[in-house]
Amino acid sequence: MAASAKPEIAFIGLGAMGFGMATHLVKQGYAVTGFDVWPPTLERFRAAGGNTAATPAEAVRGCDYIVCMVATAAQAQSVLLEGENPALGEISTSASLLLCSTVPCAYVQDLEAQLAQKGRGDVLLVDCPVSGGAARAADGTLSIMAGGSNKALDKARFLLQELSDTSKLYVVEGGIGAGSNMKMVHQVLAAVKILATAEGLGFAQHLGLDLGYTYESIQNSDASAWMFGHRGPRVLSEFKPIASAITIILKDAGIITSEALRVGFSTPMTGTAEQVYLSSIGRGYGADDDSSLIRLYTEGLKDTASSLSEDNRAKKLALVQGLLKGIYLCGTAESLAFAKRCHLDLDQVYDLCVNAAGGSKMLETAGPEIINLFRGKQTAAEAESESLQDVARQLQEAVSEAQRLKMPLYLGTEASNLIRLALQHVPDQAQPLSRATIAKVWAA
Amino acid sequence: MAASAKPEIAFIGLGAMGFGMATHLVKQGYAVTGFDVWPPTLERFRAAGGNTAATPAEAVRGCDYIVCMVATAAQAQSVLLEGENPALGEISTSASLLLCSTVPCAYVQDLEAQLAQKGRGDVLLVDCPVSGGAARAADGTLSIMAGGSNKALDKARFLLQELSDTSKLYVVEGGIGAGSNMKMVHQVLAAVKILATAEGLGFAQHLGLDLGYTYESIQNSDASAWMFGHRGPRVLSEFKPIASAITIILKDAGIITSEALRVGFSTPMTGTAEQVYLSSIGRGYGADDDSSLIRLYTEGLKDTASSLSEDNRAKKLALVQGLLKGIYLCGTAESLAFAKRCHLDLDQVYDLCVNAAGGSKMLETAGPEIINLFRGKQTAAEAESESLQDVARQLQEAVSEAQRLKMPLYLGTEASNLIRLALQHVPDQAQPLSRATIAKVWAA
Repeated sequence: MAASAKPEIAFIGLGAMGFGMATHLVKQGYAVTGFDVWPPTLERFRAAGGNTAATPAEAVRGCDYIVCMVATAAQAQSVLLEGENPALGEISTSASLLLCSTVPCAYVQDLEAQLAQKGRGDVLLVDCPVSGGAARAADGTLSIMAGGSNKALDKARFLLQELSDTSKLYVVEGGIGAGSNMKMVHQVLAAVKILATAEGLGFAQHLGLDLGYTYESIQNSDASAWMFGHRGPRVLSEFKPIASAITIILKDAGIITSEALRVGFSTPMTGTAEQVYLSSIGRGYGADDDSSLIRLYTEGLKDTASSLSEDNRAKKLALVQGLLKGIYLCGTAESLAFAKRCHLDLDQVYDLCVNAAGGSKMLETAGPEIINLFRGKQTAAEAESESLQDVARQLQEAVSEAQRLKMPLYLGTEASNLIRLALQHVPDQAQPLSRATIAKVWAA
Repeated sequence: MAASAKPEIAFIGLGAMGFGMATHLVKQGYAVTGFDVWPPTLERFRAAGGNTAATPAEAVRGCDYIVCMVATAAQAQSVLLEGENPALGEISTSASLLLCSTVPCAYVQDLEAQLAQKGRGDVLLVDCPVSGGAARAADGTLSIMAGGSNKALDKARFLLQELSDTSKLYVVEGGIGAGSNMKMVHQVLAAVKILATAEGLGFAQHLGLDLGYTYESIQNSDASAWMFGHRGPRVLSEFKPIASAITIILKDAGIITSEALRVGFSTPMTGTAEQVYLSSIGRGYGADDDSSLIRLYTEGLKDTASSLSEDNRAKKLALVQGLLKGIYLCGTAESLAFAKRCHLDLDQVYDLCVNAAGGSKMLETAGPEIINLFRGKQTAAEAESESLQDVARQLQEAVSEAQRLKMPLYLGTEASNLIRLALQHVPDQAQPLSRATIAKVWAA
């Protein structure tokens, strides 16, 4: 497309993600008109070559493409429909409206209904939350999960492609809401793994392990995870830089648990993580980087720096590994079972998650076993992978040790109890069981 | 029995409970020789008419009856077998040894094995933990759960009767370990309800309800419970007096969860409570009264005293009720399912618990439904009792409101997820289900 042929784009919400996405579009030669409630951001956007508008209505006037990247459903409702000078009155006929915010499936479906009700069924809404962080937003290499009508997807495809990595634009079957559901089941993994990083490193600290050594060793083991790799270094640098506030993952956890409630699905792992996030809010930690959640595990702990023998160190490291693997297995099962409940394509969910922030060695290896179980395929423990009993035993050793050390392991305890719930329903526990058996807790 | 015919009794462990029990025996005319590691207690015991000894060995010398009421299994092991001058060397042939401490079933069974191994299989061990608090200990009206051989029980019966209320001496079938198991399943209810009191009143405070009003209203409703009645007033009087430290219920929760781990039983409700207890230890609250756990729910809360309309007040109170009922239902199911797993007589468990500190309106009404379910009897929701869906709906309203208020509800969230796990496995959720259906999570 020649630069002159590129359509004008209205961009609402220039936060950490939105600013990067909008300026990337400017660099690609689009005329972009931005709106944000925070004036200094507008100034920065003009300096970056963008145009700015004083209201959402002004921003969208005459534009055939609108991207909305505000933080919450309430903000989207305000800028699009209900606030001062909302976009609604000025949206062009049959314009594309890309809602990139992470919102509940229920909200984006409701937005579609509201547009129809207001006589604007012509607006080509796309439900397309993103993932990947501010750096990838600015590079135009985000992961995007897009749902909507074929017509809406066709019209918006070039724009979605501009914003995403070629291999990371996922068109999700199921219409409006499907993209949000895809993001949601990915966030189950994220919400569990962000807290698991704090829990694992907090446990390591109680055990007297050096955190740098623990970090390196875990990431080179079968307990590795993208989140651990991402948050671990920030634990080591005193929770700096503040890359992702606790309130952000709390918001996403709230979307998961409220949607789960709405559809009658159980999310014990995410629910447990959410309670710990909430308790950190009461402590006044909300705006801090989420790597700082380790503080909820190390309160009252005296200096534990100890010189351990190599053998002893290896044993303690194995406890941390066992803890993380048990948590990741249960998180994987909760995420995939929820995806099944939302009628998502499980192969697509797996492909997306394993290559994104929710990824881990456990997801990579146990994920396919769980998907096979859901499809009624072979689920006997394979010779080359651990059995559920193996995972349980390693996890339970960690839980018992934490009990002895008098420290909480919120997720580890939850995972240990979930695995036992699964095992209680198996008539013959003497035979090694596939790790996938854990998923029977959610879906018989 | 004439006073002169009453046997001498050795009493090891004169803490809050033991002191009351031992002095009660003195008042009943027994010659009691006490031992404790804390000298001022020995002085008080002499002032109360008891004899004292300098070592466990000296205390038990020549006595045909020995009561051990120390705080933990480790202490019992020390005073009986392994510490300085332990009782072992001086225990009379075929003496009665009543272990009244709350210990894991595994420990008291191991104690029996150790005695046999040391050639003291003649000792008539009784596994008889107690319940009821210091006041009832001093009155000789405790609840006692006693297991052991018939011979041991026959010999010890009069002494157990001296210490217990006539209607509250429970002889538990199953030999050594059965008494401890009975106490353990009772403590599932206690551990869950102590935290539930804090969670319910903390929630009320966030809702802007007056705590005195909340306390009275809850205790006059179907959400009433013995623990709530007991701890509630101490919440209102700034956690005074210190009647039961957090470390005590933490110890009992640890017995439950470690025994559960050992036998492969899942205790998600107790496990959740235990993690919160553990987090309070890190905060330095361990020695405080357990009513002070409310602090973990009200951190960062500004003064919420608000004048609510009567209608609004009733709605908020209903949320607290719904929360507590949901928690109590899941606690009841976890306790009874664990009792079943331990092969206890469920009618006896019910009778004991409903009349003790674990009691609640929910246990009273849903307990029999759950026991019937385990026996394969009618479990359709009866017209006069709520359905599982009713309980779930009320609980989930509370959980959603807490999410909005940004406060944690550890137990409420756990219970809500457990109920949804149960419902996910029911093919037809449109029909009202018996509340007992929740127990299927533990035992199919």
